[in-house]
Amino acid sequence: MKTFTEYLFFNTRERQEFIRITDEVQRIVETSGVQEGMVLVSAMHITSGVYVNDWEDGLIHDFKVWLEQLAPSGLDYRHHQTGEDNADAHLKRTIMGHQVMLPITKGALDLGPWEQVFYAEFDGQRRKRVVVKVMGE
Amino acid sequence: MKTFTEYLFFNTRERQEFIRITDEVQRIVETSGVQEGMVLVSAMHITSGVYVNDWEDGLIHDFKVWLEQLAPSGLDYRHHQTGEDNADAHLKRTIMGHQVMLPITKGALDLGPWEQVFYAEFDGQRRKRVVVKVMGE
Amino acid sequence: MKTFTEYLFFNTRERQEFIRITDEVQRIVETSGVQEGMVLVSAMHITSGVYVNDWEDGLIHDFKVWLEQLAPSGLDYRHHQTGEDNADAHLKRTIMGHQVMLPITKGALDLGPWEQVFYAEFDGQRRKRVVVKVMGE
Repeated sequence: MKTFTEYLFFNTRERQEFIRITDEVQRIVETSGVQEGMVLVSAMHITSGVYVNDWEDGLIHDFKVWLEQLAPSGLDYRHHQTGEDNADAHLKRTIMGHQVMLPITKGALDLGPWEQVFYAEFDGQRRKRVVVKVMGE
Repeated sequence: MKTFTEYLFFNTRERQEFIRITDEVQRIVETSGVQEGMVLVSAMHITSGVYVNDWEDGLIHDFKVWLEQLAPSGLDYRHHQTGEDNADAHLKRTIMGHQVMLPITKGALDLGPWEQVFYAEFDGQRRKRVVVKVMGE
Repeated sequence: MKTFTEYLFFNTRERQEFIRITDEVQRIVETSGVQEGMVLVSAMHITSGVYVNDWEDGLIHDFKVWLEQLAPSGLDYRHHQTGEDNADAHLKRTIMGHQVMLPITKGALDLGPWEQVFYAEFDGQRRKRVVVKVMGE
């Protein structure tokens, strides 16, 4: 059994930004040498997420509008009594999910034709980290 | 370490359909010969999901009504400017989740008394695929 | 390859309660002797969840208020025709997620500075179970 761990770093220009990371994860899988197994891609901060969905700008726009409706920013959240202003980011990342497990078959990500992996930042403009851990043989 | 991969295929009659797949996953685990490990069950399309919850028709009805409220179909989504009409399916599958990891103990799925695995189709009536990947020993 | 399985039990005083379990999971990882791998933490009941987020009472309050808005209790759910009264608990746990996979690096949980693991009970006051399964080497 082999394991291989790498970290991806993000420091977004905007507070909220969705970044496609499929190629970075695929590159880490190749570096690991694992032919059959799985790779965990997981946000290490609690105001960002990792999800799989479409690489289409219109849909990404729809996601942002939708998340703002379901978990609005600027409300009088109890969390803000600590001095924070990002309670909505914690909620938004909960809806999107904070991690995915991707199957590795014959040395490559075993994804469907439209599956793309995204990092979803909801409280950016500072350095954040994602762990990518490969396990297999 | 062993790995074993199989794919499940679905072509639903209805656009939206929830299908119990616990037995199919258990059968794949048995075929794999893995006694201790985990199995990943993950939708390979971005308008369907995989989740664990109750095998009770009333609750499945409640899920569908609830998802339609949280992520309505027929709105003027930006994604639809590409010619698609299924943005709501992308959002609904995001709420339900698109994958689960199930523990395998003594050669069987290690599930609680009411846990059942479901495939949730939100844009069906065409061939879709789910990857089932077993890892363990 | 090593696997190691343990179960955590909960019997909450309140119907709804969020309980931090990071230390219990870390202890199980240490007992397993696994240095590099992953640990699955998964609710075995369908009205509770497991999630990673902030250990801050204000935010936990915000989560509860928010979940009650998105998935209200006391509605006339179809599921309640079976005699149950907990349909909202099934929906709430779906939003929070019912499981997490945590990376293990150098014998410890490989978590970011603010990541904490929680058990989220939505229909408590009775004995519930969470499976913790370690896999690695």
